[in-house]
Amino acid sequence: MFLKSPPDPIQTVAREFETIVGKDGVIRRKDELLTYECDGITGYRQRPALVVLPRTTEQIAAIVKICHEKEIPWVARGAGTGLSGGALPLENGVLIVTARMNRILSIDLDNQRVVVQPGVINNWVTQAVSGAGFYYAPDPSSQIICSIGGNVAENSGGVHCLKYGVTSNHVLGLKIVIPDGSILDTGGFVPETPGYDLTGVFVGSEGTLGIATEITLRILKTPESICVLLADFTSVEAAGQTVADIIKSGIIPAGMEIMDNLSINSVEDVVATGCYPRDAEAVLLVELDGLAVEVAANKHRVGEICRQNGARNITAANDAETRLKLWKGRKAAFAAAGKMSRNYFVQDGVIPRSQLAPVLQEINALGEKYGYKIANVFHAGDGNLHPLILYDNKVKGAWEEVEELGGEILKVCVRVGGSLSGEHGIGVDKSCYMPAMFNEIDLETMGYVRDCFNPKGLANPGKLFPTPRTCGEAANAKQQEFNGVDLF
Amino acid sequence: MFLKSPPDPIQTVAREFETIVGKDGVIRRKDELLTYECDGITGYRQRPALVVLPRTTEQIAAIVKICHEKEIPWVARGAGTGLSGGALPLENGVLIVTARMNRILSIDLDNQRVVVQPGVINNWVTQAVSGAGFYYAPDPSSQIICSIGGNVAENSGGVHCLKYGVTSNHVLGLKIVIPDGSILDTGGFVPETPGYDLTGVFVGSEGTLGIATEITLRILKTPESICVLLADFTSVEAAGQTVADIIKSGIIPAGMEIMDNLSINSVEDVVATGCYPRDAEAVLLVELDGLAVEVAANKHRVGEICRQNGARNITAANDAETRLKLWKGRKAAFAAAGKMSRNYFVQDGVIPRSQLAPVLQEINALGEKYGYKIANVFHAGDGNLHPLILYDNKVKGAWEEVEELGGEILKVCVRVGGSLSGEHGIGVDKSCYMPAMFNEIDLETMGYVRDCFNPKGLANPGKLFPTPRTCGEAANAKQQEFNGVDLF
Repeated sequence: MFLKSPPDPIQTVAREFETIVGKDGVIRRKDELLTYECDGITGYRQRPALVVLPRTTEQIAAIVKICHEKEIPWVARGAGTGLSGGALPLENGVLIVTARMNRILSIDLDNQRVVVQPGVINNWVTQAVSGAGFYYAPDPSSQIICSIGGNVAENSGGVHCLKYGVTSNHVLGLKIVIPDGSILDTGGFVPETPGYDLTGVFVGSEGTLGIATEITLRILKTPESICVLLADFTSVEAAGQTVADIIKSGIIPAGMEIMDNLSINSVEDVVATGCYPRDAEAVLLVELDGLAVEVAANKHRVGEICRQNGARNITAANDAETRLKLWKGRKAAFAAAGKMSRNYFVQDGVIPRSQLAPVLQEINALGEKYGYKIANVFHAGDGNLHPLILYDNKVKGAWEEVEELGGEILKVCVRVGGSLSGEHGIGVDKSCYMPAMFNEIDLETMGYVRDCFNPKGLANPGKLFPTPRTCGEAANAKQQEFNGVDLF
Repeated sequence: MFLKSPPDPIQTVAREFETIVGKDGVIRRKDELLTYECDGITGYRQRPALVVLPRTTEQIAAIVKICHEKEIPWVARGAGTGLSGGALPLENGVLIVTARMNRILSIDLDNQRVVVQPGVINNWVTQAVSGAGFYYAPDPSSQIICSIGGNVAENSGGVHCLKYGVTSNHVLGLKIVIPDGSILDTGGFVPETPGYDLTGVFVGSEGTLGIATEITLRILKTPESICVLLADFTSVEAAGQTVADIIKSGIIPAGMEIMDNLSINSVEDVVATGCYPRDAEAVLLVELDGLAVEVAANKHRVGEICRQNGARNITAANDAETRLKLWKGRKAAFAAAGKMSRNYFVQDGVIPRSQLAPVLQEINALGEKYGYKIANVFHAGDGNLHPLILYDNKVKGAWEEVEELGGEILKVCVRVGGSLSGEHGIGVDKSCYMPAMFNEIDLETMGYVRDCFNPKGLANPGKLFPTPRTCGEAANAKQQEFNGVDLF
């Protein structure tokens, strides 16, 4: 930079921001900014021009208003654990980090409501109310580090969303700073409010409509009893059919997970659970919760359905320790994939439950066609697939092939009536694929809705929706490190 | 009208519509138009200029496109059972009636999905799948006559929405004709899709964003066992506390209803159930469903909680006949109010569950202040109140007082953190009260969202949002007949 260049607008607003949040709330040093250059998907990296750490709704409103007036783009970031590059900063933009907005504002056990700031960690909500016998249901695997604000932006799921739904089912109201700096109140304390469901629009909007600064969550009563069943099968089809039959019987387990043979062997190599038979083509985990009598009855029925579908062994765990042992392999699945292969790419797609077996065959056929091994881990109850494509990024051209293969898998999901993303969001990573799922009128209407909140396009530009940039350059610029991320 | 006046645009489009839907699909005769002049809230009446009865999405798109081009306002109407005047026609507008779009398009039991046209009657969905052991959960009291399209527009509830949620929880995807005649596809076959939740925005939008022409519904497995408990109390507070304690214990009944002494006596006068003690200050109905073992266990626990709160008698019904007998009084509550008083006005508000007892006191105090008796019937589990204000419309000024009193009750609901409407919608009836619940920025943002879909304001103008017209003239023009409407 030359001495005589005009004053950098970012440096000017930095000083304005300091008057709002204090000197220690603005990060301007390049080495410190590095911390914020990516989220959980380390393939996309970009250092922001400036980071600001507000503590209140009013501070965020003041910051966003300045950005609006000076037309400076900005990105909101929670804990930075997202898996689609939704919080990827902008080179010339401000990154608004909610880490200091970490207070639980109120707890109302009678009405089962908790109001939190966006930087509150997911797991803290349950910790705050578990003594009184309550919990917060959405449980992304990153729940001990991810923030509620990020969960709201991505509409996060978890292994228990089969029975309890995703974040949108547990957010009743929001205070939102919209991109002109105004403060919007949506929803409320009661489950349904008149007018358009702006809370529903905001949840899952991936930072493109504003920043939620107060979030009213519904909490649930801790179930009296929990039981986990693990069954192994000689075919994935049989495991898939078991899932369909369990649902058809009227039982809604808290969660149902399937792992295929490659995943089974990779976790046994790494964590040696001893519970996942290496010669099984699939293991199925079923978690049941509710009243003790209900869980006991359902356990019996699920066991029967497993046997009818040819399960070889069925193990049941009622106590916490044994339950954790049965879950151990599933929880280690992604980390184990990282040990099995130099690199892996985790895809996130959704299919109708009835399509599990044929889609799995197509995924495996695609893997063979492209010459890559694919380990499969599914939230089977809700049809959310996580194929893990194993590859070596030192092999020239491998990443491009894997990305293409990942895209082909998503197209299969959409073709059978499914979705591009179950829980990781679109971000920069999948925005190119949106036209595979939505027609022009759909995307245009979503664009109009975005413009209602974000008319200047300053809030998280380039995310969620396809743009020439995200569908061209970004794909090439993308790096390929996914190892060592422990998620499921 | 003079002979030489310019051609009436409505008569011109009538001929265009006939080429689209056939001669028998357009109603132009004034006497025939009378059928459509009001919906379930007979206080508002307006004959439409023209009625059109399409059979397909394409026909609706063509009709709406013509209206868009010629700037003719239009209103969609399902079965006409709404309770807020949401389908009130316009003098100079077209009424698009979905009665002929009454086909169930597909049933997929494996994935628990049914796709219907908007004119399908709510109860038909359950009838179509009950043989296979499934049902459609949202059950407004009008379910044998109301249409799914109307349920979507109003986000209808029912006595079972405590456990199962309202319509928005059961609609997965929509095909919508938006007001420029384009066809939009929202949501999908799987529960969560990326991008903004346009399905969620549309459900409850009261006809202001377009017409849903195909609706993908989630169906549920019929519960194995159902039990109804009826308990009576010497105070409403005790009944309210029982509701709170049941929820706090972790039980989520399918429904919980409270009736106060005036309602009890009015139903015993009319239908003589013999189950509702006339000297009780409140009766509580609790419906439990699920596995037989679960229902049995919960029945025992609910009985205990009732006794701990001072219940005098507790009756349980497991078989269908006895269950109907216990429900009989509740189902007759509104009709009975019509026998007790020349006229009654039913209000629909929501409060946090914990506020039941104090709000009831306030409602009764307001009744005394204004000099009107108020019978109270609540969906107590979800805090949805239905105070029935008894009055005589032959007394000059009574209606104006009752309307004011109804508004005061709504303000109490909003003040304690509740909502203007639980299930009847805003329509023309409550649009004036929207500013009591939403601030200017909230309403402005909703207005922007409306403009995304409905930029010319042709779809259901004057509904949902406050306008000078609805808040002035309409209130005066409103008639006062609510008698004989059997709803709950």
